This record gives sequence, C-alpha cells and structure tokens, in this order.
Amino acid sequence: MNLILLFPEDFVSERIARLSGRRLDHMTSVHRAQVGDEVSVGLLGGPMGRATVTHLDAEVVELEVRCEQEPPPKLPLTLILALPRPKVLNRVIAAATSLGVQRIYLVNAWRVEKSYWKSPRLAEENLLQQRILGLEQAKDTVLPELHLKRLLRPFAEEELPHLVEGSLALAAHPGSPEPCPRAIGSPVTLAIGPEGGFLPAEIELLGRSGFRPVDLGPRILRVETAVAALTARLF
Amino acid sequence: MNLILLFPEDFVSERIARLSGRRLDHMTSVHRAQVGDEVSVGLLGGPMGRATVTHLDAEVVELEVRCEQEPPPKLPLTLILALPRPKVLNRVIAAATSLGVQRIYLVNAWRVEKSYWKSPRLAEENLLQQRILGLEQAKDTVLPELHLKRLLRPFAEEELPHLVEGSLALAAHPGSPEPCPRAIGSPVTLAIGPEGGFLPAEIELLGRSGFRPVDLGPRILRVETAVAALTARLF
Repeated sequence: MNLILLFPEDFVSERIARLSGRRLDHMTSVHRAQVGDEVSVGLLGGPMGRATVTHLDAEVVELEVRCEQEPPPKLPLTLILALPRPKVLNRVIAAATSLGVQRIYLVNAWRVEKSYWKSPRLAEENLLQQRILGLEQAKDTVLPELHLKRLLRPFAEEELPHLVEGSLALAAHPGSPEPCPRAIGSPVTLAIGPEGGFLPAEIELLGRSGFRPVDLGPRILRVETAVAALTARLF
Repeated sequence: MNLILLFPEDFVSERIARLSGRRLDHMTSVHRAQVGDEVSVGLLGGPMGRATVTHLDAEVVELEVRCEQEPPPKLPLTLILALPRPKVLNRVIAAATSLGVQRIYLVNAWRVEKSYWKSPRLAEENLLQQRILGLEQAKDTVLPELHLKRLLRPFAEEELPHLVEGSLALAAHPGSPEPCPRAIGSPVTLAIGPEGGFLPAEIELLGRSGFRPVDLGPRILRVETAVAALTARLF
C-alpha cells in the first residue's frame, strides 16, 4: 500500500477522514504510523496528496488530508482477457490496474473452463477490491473499467467493432508471423487468450474486428506475466 | 506445463522414459493423455522435442522420446533481486525463469525483513522446483543460475564489479532522473530493490560497481510485475 485510497464516506468533514479496518491495520503494522506522521493518500477518482495523522488508537486513525496532485495518466490500453483461472484472477486484475490499464474486459473463450465463471472471485465486490489494491500499489486513484462478457461471439460481433475504433487491435497468438510491436504511442486494444491460447476460429472472429495476431517469441508466459510484459513492450 | 521436462533418471533406455507423480498426474488430468498421443518434452539442460505415450496406467506413463530442437536462447540478463517476501518468492523465481533470465541473485537489502531469510522456500529443492515450473511453462530446458547472497556489502564490493563486466548495469530506483532504457541488444545486469526500494546508501554502493539508477515512471509495481515489465522493456 504505497498510497492510502480514501472514499467519500471516510470523510467526517471537508479535510478530515477517519479510517478503520484494513487501512488502519496497515498503517499501524506496516507503516508503524504515529500521530504527526505524514502518509501518501489519494481520493478515489480524484487528486492525490499527503495526509497528517492527527489521532490514532486501536479503533480508528484520523487524517488531515491535502490532495492537489493529479494521479498518473492511464495507458491508452484496453485489455480483452480470456477469463483466467480463479487462482490467478485477483493477481491479474491487481497487476493490470497497477500497470495503468484503462479498461479490462474479461471474456469467454473455448479453452476457458466453464467452472471459472462460477468463481466467487467474480463477485463485483472482489473485482473492485482487487482494483483498489492495484491502485494502492501503483499510487493511482482512478479505477480501470472492468466488464464481464460471458459470451464471446455476440461480444465480438456487436461490441468489439466499436470498441477497437481508433486503436491498434492486437491478439497475442504464439506462432503468428508478425512479432508484437513496441513502444506504440497511440491507443491499443490487446486480446490475450486463455491457457492453451485462442482457437484459430477465435482468432478469425477477432480478425473480423480488425485484430492482428502477433507473436511474443518462443516462450509461453503465464497470463499475469504476459500482461506485464506486453504492456511494458507496447508503451 | 507446456513442456514436460525430463531428467536423466527418468530414462530406462536411450529413448524410453518413465514418469510418475506430478508429471503423470498432469498428463492424465490436464492433457488427458492416452496411449498414442504426442506431447512436448525437453531434456533438462538439453534439446527439446516430442514424445509418444507408449504405455499409461495409474502408476506410470511411458514415453518414447525424440529431442532434436534447441531450446530458446536465454536473454543476456542477470537479475540482482532484493529477496522478496516468501509469499511471492516462488512466483518471482518461476516468472523470471519463464521470461528467459540467465542468472538470478537473491540479495539482502536494508528493507528486506530478516525473517525472509529463514523461509523454508529458500531451500535448494524449492528454488529448483520453481525454476523447473518456469521452464515447463515457457518451453525451455535450461535452468537459470540462482545464487543467494545474505550480505549485500561484501557481495557488492567483491563480486559485483566482476559480475557486471561487459554489461549495462541498471538499478531500478523510482524517482531517478534517467528513465529505464528500451530494447537493449547487449547484456544487462539489473538490480531491483525490496518493497520500499533501495536506500540511497545502497544505490551509492551499487553505483560504485557502475550501476546507474533508472526510473520506471510514476507507478510503483510489485516485484513480480516489475520483473516482467522491465525484462520486456529491456529486450
């Protein structure tokens, strides 16, 4: 937690926030905060800055908040991710958020096991929590959009063509003749398949919306590693 | 497991290998392998290729092995990593291996908690296992070197100056004026600090071996995300 994210309901007056629970625990056990200390804070969806600890006990910490700094800009990157296995889902969402991804679509694909869609980790509250963890890690305040699309075909046929407008659309597909480009300055929509990859028919379906299959070299990476590596390569 | 890694002791004759345990379980439960199927295999430290399942029961799978393909080249990258917290150590080692890192040094730093050095995950057997998982993921056969250095100063003063010879030495240090370079064709030695970063004195110590502090932008990444992002940016 490199930044403590503050929500409207934390504020008891214009500049005074009171926190308990996870954020209080973190401040006492990791930051070892004491009255008078300064910490990095940010307002969800708003500016970032510093706060002074004005009161601290076992139940609550009170902060005097000054936020005037803009959060870091998002990358102009939309991720279309085949739903990862529940075990790695949290990490992938938090990592993509920390990297500054603007929008995340979790979509179905042939090689996504059906049971993954029943995971309690897909609950809205958990998906919000993982993005909050990513923001706190990266020192950002702006949540990436997150959408679930349980049917690939209607999503690909009806929504994707609009979604990719004005962006370079790439599908990570090992073995493609074209290597993944580098240091793109303009918006990118990037599709990443499930373990085992997209089917050729899925690549073709994405191709109809303008996605070009690109290769990442001979090494097959786990989705959380691939997301970080591709994002860093593209921007 | 995109490649089944084979060890000398798996072979009962020149081309016949017998596997049980984890690899057998994976082949039956994930690959759903049957007699006659082909699977990707590789010899530890040697060539990769295909194998045919010639026998399969609940106890053992027998493979007829043909390996003639060179494994993918390693990246000319040496990672000097402040020992990560045990919870993420396995993932970091497996991810660095899958990315093709050539050598990994796990070193101490002021902000590495002392207790991390007592983690059972630092046992040689576990560190080997995580690298094997990384090779199986990436379709590679060559283990990266892995070294533990519990004292930063003697390592930095006595070994690092030799280790960095012929390479560009970079230390990831948020806030440095120089941004991390991109697409380096030549060898790199990259130091990544603990959560909270290296101390200025540690950056100075590394600087005496030629390490230049470089910035990665305003976002603070978790070590496993940073390793993937930096590797992809550099190569």
